[in-house]
Amino acid sequence: MRVAVVGATGAVGREIVRILAQRHFPLTDLALFASPRSEGLRVPFGDERVAVRALGDDWHEGMDLALVSAGATVSRAILPAAAEAGTISVDNSSAFRMDPAVTFVVPEINPRDLAWHRGIVANPNCTAIMALMPLGPLHRAFGLAFLVTSSYQSASGSGMKGVRELALQIEKLHGDEEGLMHPDPAMLPAGEVFPRTLAFNVVPLVERADPAGSGFTTEELKMGDEARKVLGIPDLPCAATGVRVPTIAGHGVSVYARFDREITAEGARDVLTAAAGVEVVDDLEAGRFPTPLDAAGRDEVLVGRIRQPAGDDRGLLFFSVGDNLRKGAALNAVQIAELLATP
Amino acid sequence: MRVAVVGATGAVGREIVRILAQRHFPLTDLALFASPRSEGLRVPFGDERVAVRALGDDWHEGMDLALVSAGATVSRAILPAAAEAGTISVDNSSAFRMDPAVTFVVPEINPRDLAWHRGIVANPNCTAIMALMPLGPLHRAFGLAFLVTSSYQSASGSGMKGVRELALQIEKLHGDEEGLMHPDPAMLPAGEVFPRTLAFNVVPLVERADPAGSGFTTEELKMGDEARKVLGIPDLPCAATGVRVPTIAGHGVSVYARFDREITAEGARDVLTAAAGVEVVDDLEAGRFPTPLDAAGRDEVLVGRIRQPAGDDRGLLFFSVGDNLRKGAALNAVQIAELLATP
Repeated sequence: MRVAVVGATGAVGREIVRILAQRHFPLTDLALFASPRSEGLRVPFGDERVAVRALGDDWHEGMDLALVSAGATVSRAILPAAAEAGTISVDNSSAFRMDPAVTFVVPEINPRDLAWHRGIVANPNCTAIMALMPLGPLHRAFGLAFLVTSSYQSASGSGMKGVRELALQIEKLHGDEEGLMHPDPAMLPAGEVFPRTLAFNVVPLVERADPAGSGFTTEELKMGDEARKVLGIPDLPCAATGVRVPTIAGHGVSVYARFDREITAEGARDVLTAAAGVEVVDDLEAGRFPTPLDAAGRDEVLVGRIRQPAGDDRGLLFFSVGDNLRKGAALNAVQIAELLATP
Repeated sequence: MRVAVVGATGAVGREIVRILAQRHFPLTDLALFASPRSEGLRVPFGDERVAVRALGDDWHEGMDLALVSAGATVSRAILPAAAEAGTISVDNSSAFRMDPAVTFVVPEINPRDLAWHRGIVANPNCTAIMALMPLGPLHRAFGLAFLVTSSYQSASGSGMKGVRELALQIEKLHGDEEGLMHPDPAMLPAGEVFPRTLAFNVVPLVERADPAGSGFTTEELKMGDEARKVLGIPDLPCAATGVRVPTIAGHGVSVYARFDREITAEGARDVLTAAAGVEVVDDLEAGRFPTPLDAAGRDEVLVGRIRQPAGDDRGLLFFSVGDNLRKGAALNAVQIAELLATP
């Protein structure tokens, strides 16, 4: 298999290259593409270093498979032609996820949807997948009926520039933490990546306002849209809130789910313990619960705080966390590629 | 009025003293009490400095009113005798909140409940009040039926020692933010205040596991318990998740509420715009939404991200933020004291 990685120098692209090496992906050739300003950069791939090429119109020539993480605008511009020419792309952007003609896959949940791809396979949103990984098996067992989520999304969800912006803001504010109990608004560092100071703050606006004026952000709408498509529940009601927090890696989601059938915390725990790609970390008395720093660098989505509100026989709460660059992006894309590479 | 502040050197106590001065509370005498190790410390009160005394058995002698923030154990030990002797206490701890014989007041919501106090008035939890301030007027208008909350609680919710622990952890980890994308667990600083590294992390355990084994934390149970008591809805179902985040001041809450009657985002915004103590900060297109750093040092609870999930005529989402040391503790206590001081 001749494999291209498009957007190879970004936070997700670098993670894709790292995971291809770690998992010994069956490739015969690896081509790395990025914008012209990264041309010639040499990216480590196992013991080798692979030079980055500028993305041109002919990038897909000779490529069997492309792993693409260069934003929705680039994906929209380049993927239809590549598909036409026979290159299968796994696209990490939101460009094609909701296209009914494009399959959209979490390998642990709906691998069979890969059967009907037409040259582009969409990879889910980095926050939605943290909720979907446990909700997939729970839905199969109990029938998902209603969903409320609040996210705790890390700076790397906005790429390396997000990580650097948070680090710069911490640099400016650290040392006078007590002063932040009565902050002077004029002293709070502004940034370009996040719409408000993120250091020592949380920002309940991720991505942008829904242009349709629903009051939701485009990021929040993905939670419901992607749950409906991946889980196959076209009318699932979903109330999602997306919040950026001053963490570097690891996205958390606080989930309330209501099911068609009765459920218990114990029953949910049994289902999740048996689920692929999920690790139950759940013993409050023993101090076992998942946090973003536990998930960063790991493949599994960690699920804990599994409990049922009093008197709510069909309701369940849990907190799930995963590495937004791995299962939230690069790992899921490589898993899809592995399935595509298996005859 | 002769006024005592118990726990005067803590984060909340210092804020109580500051607010008594700022609001020109009608006092003739101010006595500050703390543990013996703070004895003699001189705390600024307006242009004066007041020496801190060690808390002894006779602390309440001659005191008309006490503002108490020294933890539930101290409150349980000292307040019944003070009430017996005629000193009215406003207690910031959780010790008496759920006692049916103790009134529990948010002045903007249920001021009339002050009429039946028996010497102790309970002040609400610092996170619950951020949800209650908007939910109070919304409940009056639409009838609250179901509540899901996820919190974003700051380090100062654990007092100055929480602020210092977070600052120390930031000191250790800052400078290698990129390294936290693949953190080495052995390098993550442990602490004594928070059960896990809080810097660059979020910790879904606030306070401790419910000893009754419900799977909730004691902090999470307060949200439902306090909403039921303050709003007067004895059977309100509530699904709360409490999460500590690496902020210094300002507690945020992401709220999904369902009402008995139909509601719209616009109708909710009208009700909240007219509500005392609440400021609507809500225009996503214009980048107006509330964050903890906006709320820190302010009196109002800021409410934004007001919206309705598609097809959910009785559902409403919002994000509210307030200063946990002010409206979340000290300010609400002083407001109660002002009502008690008014003949």
